[in-house]
Amino acid sequence: MIKEKNDIEEILNKTKSFLVVSHDMPDGDAIGSVLAVGKALENLNKDVILFIGDEIPDKYHFMYGSDKIITDGEISYIPPVLFVLDCGDLSRVKLKKEFFSKKTIVNIDHHLSNSYFGDINIIDINACATGEIIFKLFKELNIEIDLDIATAIYTAILTDTGSFRFSNSTPDSHLIAAELIKSGVKPEKISREIYEKRSIEGLKILSKALECLKVSKCGNYAWTFITKEMLAETGAVESDLEGIINYVREIKGVEIGILFKQVSDSVVKVGFRSNEWVDVRQLAVKFSGGGHKRASGCLIRGKLGDVINLVLKEVEKYF
Amino acid sequence: MIKEKNDIEEILNKTKSFLVVSHDMPDGDAIGSVLAVGKALENLNKDVILFIGDEIPDKYHFMYGSDKIITDGEISYIPPVLFVLDCGDLSRVKLKKEFFSKKTIVNIDHHLSNSYFGDINIIDINACATGEIIFKLFKELNIEIDLDIATAIYTAILTDTGSFRFSNSTPDSHLIAAELIKSGVKPEKISREIYEKRSIEGLKILSKALECLKVSKCGNYAWTFITKEMLAETGAVESDLEGIINYVREIKGVEIGILFKQVSDSVVKVGFRSNEWVDVRQLAVKFSGGGHKRASGCLIRGKLGDVINLVLKEVEKYF
Repeated sequence: MIKEKNDIEEILNKTKSFLVVSHDMPDGDAIGSVLAVGKALENLNKDVILFIGDEIPDKYHFMYGSDKIITDGEISYIPPVLFVLDCGDLSRVKLKKEFFSKKTIVNIDHHLSNSYFGDINIIDINACATGEIIFKLFKELNIEIDLDIATAIYTAILTDTGSFRFSNSTPDSHLIAAELIKSGVKPEKISREIYEKRSIEGLKILSKALECLKVSKCGNYAWTFITKEMLAETGAVESDLEGIINYVREIKGVEIGILFKQVSDSVVKVGFRSNEWVDVRQLAVKFSGGGHKRASGCLIRGKLGDVINLVLKEVEKYF
Repeated sequence: MIKEKNDIEEILNKTKSFLVVSHDMPDGDAIGSVLAVGKALENLNKDVILFIGDEIPDKYHFMYGSDKIITDGEISYIPPVLFVLDCGDLSRVKLKKEFFSKKTIVNIDHHLSNSYFGDINIIDINACATGEIIFKLFKELNIEIDLDIATAIYTAILTDTGSFRFSNSTPDSHLIAAELIKSGVKPEKISREIYEKRSIEGLKILSKALECLKVSKCGNYAWTFITKEMLAETGAVESDLEGIINYVREIKGVEIGILFKQVSDSVVKVGFRSNEWVDVRQLAVKFSGGGHKRASGCLIRGKLGDVINLVLKEVEKYF
């Protein structure tokens, strides 16, 4: 039971146009959630504007409606009701603050940190993805889940559970996946779109990063780096670097994986990942960064070699 | 309903000792199935011998009973009843043929090609894994699925569906996964064992293989190679090469991915993978190899460079 069901029903009955938004640097859950809600509203003959403040990565373009998401420029008209999806707080939406004033905000999210910024807040921190909450809401509202919506929700769940591998892969994640597949979703097609559209540039930069990979003497941490030259030689772009840090973290016996990326001659971006017990947010905070227990990052001024030495000295203290 | 339920019940009632086997070069379904049936029989106070004719890869050693699987040497005593799991035919079991004579054979499998070699045959080609059939059988027989059995079955399903990504990821795969997680299986722990125990040697050889990666002018096929020297330099072993061919196949736009591996100065092992339409078994057959539509291989005599030229000429014909 979603107790806000009646409130949502009332809003749907009395409103003609909606803005559906999610966070910048969007992932599969952000995009899938926006597209699922967008298509459901479209099916109800509503006017819908979809907004995400950053480009939609290529791999998500197979979903219905992905080409309708506004990702830049100004929105001239802001409808009276905003669905804000998968956002812990409003600062994650790349819209000017005044856009939110005098609007009804429906906040649907699964982040523990959610600040309940909405007029209606449907927050379930046990949901594996915002897509899961949307699925349950649609069921309660008897909103038809057509194949486009099913595909978007499946994508949200697939990506936020890391292909059903993370600890948030609950019985409910699987029960919903079962229902979505029953309704026509093809897992192999979606997985191919999401996981199997590698770029040559991405593989070449991966090759170079793995060539530079080093493991500490104790075997508890490992690191590699990406220089400006490596990027230039391979032609790789930012999105090609996604996931490289996981190869470092996934080495047998390693607890912390670290990726150093040269931003300029005097700035290095550092990413930290841990597996089981090190709180890498603490590590990042020491260098004025932030993040989560298992994934964090920071920017450090200095030459690449100096930054590596500085960070490894700090990491070494854990072991 | 499994119609052989009563036959199995009868066998369980009147038999004290069992041999449980699966195919050589075992995968997660073979091992998980053997361990699930083995533990269930153990729980029923039966004497059980587990046999798989090849070494159990390290990553499966987290499962209960994996250390009890006999993988070499002779078995001095063959019990009267054999469970043969996940084998299309008996030739896939590395036991002498005479071992099977005068024994009752229970054949449980999901391969289309199964030859119904058993006295009892429980074949379901719609099951995503043999582990799925075993789960359903245990349910029908009211055999308790303890955490060890649940872990083994989950591993069988996880690995045979490619982490729920392949086309055999059905509603049933997910419904069973949901039940297994409810009964205590931790997806993140199993996934870490299966997918996140990378070796340095494996990452170094991956780096070198990706460095040599080439895509055809048409963009429809891609290939790379691994020389004896690359193996020697990195210290990589056969199991470190698993999955490298998929990086080649997964390049955007590529239909066929090919991996050439130098076996000796005069022999090259060639692996083919396709994505959507090329029947790579046909390709392999041209060089006296074999396999499936989407995955095949062959051994070709010749120098690496010559073999690459020879094979690419044949591949080029498809486009």
